[in-house]
Amino acid sequence: MKEFKSLTKEELLQLKEELELKYKEAKEKNLKLDMSRGKPSPAQLDMGMGLMDALNSNTVLNASDGTDCRNYGILDGLPESKRLMAQIMEAEPHQVMVLGNASLPIMYDTVSRSMTHGVCGSTPWYKLDKIKFLCPVPGYDRHFAITEYFGIEMINIPMTLEGPDMDMVEELVNNDSTVKGIWCVPKYSNPQGISYSDETVRRFASLKPAAEDFRIYWDNAYAVHHLYDEVQDHILNIITECEKAGNPDMVFMFASTSKISFSGSGIAAVAASQRNLDWMRESITLQTIGYDKINQLRHVKYFKDIEGIKAHMKKHADIMRPKFEAVLSILEKNLGGLGIGSWIAPHGGYFISFEAMEGCAKAIVAKCREAGITLTGAGATYPYKHDPKDSNIRIAPSFPSPEEMAAAAEIFSLCVKLVSVEKLLEQA
Amino acid sequence: MKEFKSLTKEELLQLKEELELKYKEAKEKNLKLDMSRGKPSPAQLDMGMGLMDALNSNTVLNASDGTDCRNYGILDGLPESKRLMAQIMEAEPHQVMVLGNASLPIMYDTVSRSMTHGVCGSTPWYKLDKIKFLCPVPGYDRHFAITEYFGIEMINIPMTLEGPDMDMVEELVNNDSTVKGIWCVPKYSNPQGISYSDETVRRFASLKPAAEDFRIYWDNAYAVHHLYDEVQDHILNIITECEKAGNPDMVFMFASTSKISFSGSGIAAVAASQRNLDWMRESITLQTIGYDKINQLRHVKYFKDIEGIKAHMKKHADIMRPKFEAVLSILEKNLGGLGIGSWIAPHGGYFISFEAMEGCAKAIVAKCREAGITLTGAGATYPYKHDPKDSNIRIAPSFPSPEEMAAAAEIFSLCVKLVSVEKLLEQA
Repeated sequence: MKEFKSLTKEELLQLKEELELKYKEAKEKNLKLDMSRGKPSPAQLDMGMGLMDALNSNTVLNASDGTDCRNYGILDGLPESKRLMAQIMEAEPHQVMVLGNASLPIMYDTVSRSMTHGVCGSTPWYKLDKIKFLCPVPGYDRHFAITEYFGIEMINIPMTLEGPDMDMVEELVNNDSTVKGIWCVPKYSNPQGISYSDETVRRFASLKPAAEDFRIYWDNAYAVHHLYDEVQDHILNIITECEKAGNPDMVFMFASTSKISFSGSGIAAVAASQRNLDWMRESITLQTIGYDKINQLRHVKYFKDIEGIKAHMKKHADIMRPKFEAVLSILEKNLGGLGIGSWIAPHGGYFISFEAMEGCAKAIVAKCREAGITLTGAGATYPYKHDPKDSNIRIAPSFPSPEEMAAAAEIFSLCVKLVSVEKLLEQA
Repeated sequence: MKEFKSLTKEELLQLKEELELKYKEAKEKNLKLDMSRGKPSPAQLDMGMGLMDALNSNTVLNASDGTDCRNYGILDGLPESKRLMAQIMEAEPHQVMVLGNASLPIMYDTVSRSMTHGVCGSTPWYKLDKIKFLCPVPGYDRHFAITEYFGIEMINIPMTLEGPDMDMVEELVNNDSTVKGIWCVPKYSNPQGISYSDETVRRFASLKPAAEDFRIYWDNAYAVHHLYDEVQDHILNIITECEKAGNPDMVFMFASTSKISFSGSGIAAVAASQRNLDWMRESITLQTIGYDKINQLRHVKYFKDIEGIKAHMKKHADIMRPKFEAVLSILEKNLGGLGIGSWIAPHGGYFISFEAMEGCAKAIVAKCREAGITLTGAGATYPYKHDPKDSNIRIAPSFPSPEEMAAAAEIFSLCVKLVSVEKLLEQA
């Protein structure tokens, strides 16, 4: 098939008629499929059920240092859970605090604490007229929702295949002292599945921020979430690189087992310099007496170490891979060469990002919804839910079955074609 | 023995010599006992080990509404965990949100959210010149630490046997619009073990706050923590009373199972009006995707309902009671009638509060420490760690064994006598 843009008006009208017929048939199937959220599937969760047997009433619930995990005590993680999370994050145990059940609250609390108390002794942000965060786009809606809630101005930074546009990041961070942070998902980014290149990580580490309280929010959400055994992305360790560049305090790294063990019943951690950790502890020690050490122990007993985690994530990959491949092959089959959309085949993570023709994303999502396919709302991958080009759509293949994903991808392709033809006709 | 105050200087000097000899002997025992924190004892924790068998790899981890507890979904608690926590709190399930592993973070977050975003639409507190909280004293150090951290001015409110001095509370709340909150532990208060009278609860509910964003922080930490079967305190339901008095939004009630199941691995809840809950949800939905639903399910499967909780807490009471009675009988035996200290025999909770002669608390705690007995630091029960009379000491009998508690109470009494004699000699 030819590129849509090269079609004549008559050809487009003819095509539109054919597509509308197919769309009508698709709607009549009364499908109900959800490709909207990055939720693990029941099959993945089944893989972790052994976790429920890791502890029982005969287990001595003591940590390696003798701590009775059933009682108060220990603010920032058992020694062995620090070790496990450090391995996942490729950090050192002393750089790690293991906190609650998910990493999002740690990020939220870090922003909130910066608002009310400043960062490591700097002026509390609420006392400043303007605070800005850089937001690589497309990105993770829940990151943007936090900064929006606190009235922080968000600036879009375009993503490249190497990570965020570092020229723009350097320009802004190094010259504008109101820029206090940047949201990053450095590995298998949400939603594009891009991993930052070594060059990008090094340029991050070498920033010379105008603001002393500028911090990189390095959300290492997909650290061990590969799709393949043979092709696995690797990113440089930002903490080490920042140390080398003389910026040891510039980064907070976040991670959790939410998409390793159970979503919401995992363990989460932050890794950072001692100075940053001390600053966090100042308020955490007031916020809580301690986190769930029994769940920390449960995770350590079950996964043991990074090898246990890797073996487990291979099972996840075996479940996820066919779904990703189903979507990608159908996109290629239906849309390849048509010039009405682009996408990246990721090596890991939870999403496929689809870049439609400008001004088409909302219409595609709406058309899909009408045919029973729920997608993440168009715009959700941008700050303020505003995608200036109205072109990005996030596809989350994890939850449905491969067959459902294939069916959904067929309808999705159909909707992309139909909306694109309509758009081209408008412009004709 | 006579009241110390009626002794002549010679008698006091003679007594001092005897007491110093005994103290020297006590120190030679090289004891090491901790009466400082309200931690459950291992024996209490052993009672809950069945919790570790409540779920296993064969359990279908679905909630009553079909929710897969292993996955994302449900922000504010499973229906059955709301029911359980509502029973503990004597609230209705729809008034309850079940959140994380402990209630302290819920309180901290509530204050923090009020600082940055105001309460239910009111002006964010950080924009106001002055914010005040009322603090019934003696009270819970961790409450005071939160308000201190946020720069909130704390005003001492003396406790009576009926609860806080309500004349003073009414005067301040009803006339001063900078008064935004009050910390209450209404049942078996920390540290005195006082339960608020019906009259006190009704006067709370009938406050006419000068500030629309005034809230009562009702920390129902010891709702089911009785020491006796026969004598159990009961307090009026503050939520119902506030509704009746036309103040439905004036209170947040907090509770957890930290001292029912496992400390730090429990479940925690807040109960309040729909308007208050909606306000909390606005930020909670940004702070987290959800809390640990598997642990919620574990608690419900194990305890089932309030009858299960009550049966469990009876076992705790059987362990706690001898420790409380050991302390109380030794205090009575050694200090009764001497006029150098007073205390209350509580019907529940975790503490015994000792009121020494003015200016003696710090010296008593120091003397105890020298003899190997760790007590909560004198002053800890007051805002800013400042007990204006230097007289209150919190005794936490829960963790040591009854024998250890008896040994510790003997030395404590000795230190009280010695410090009191020294004080009286100073004044003689």
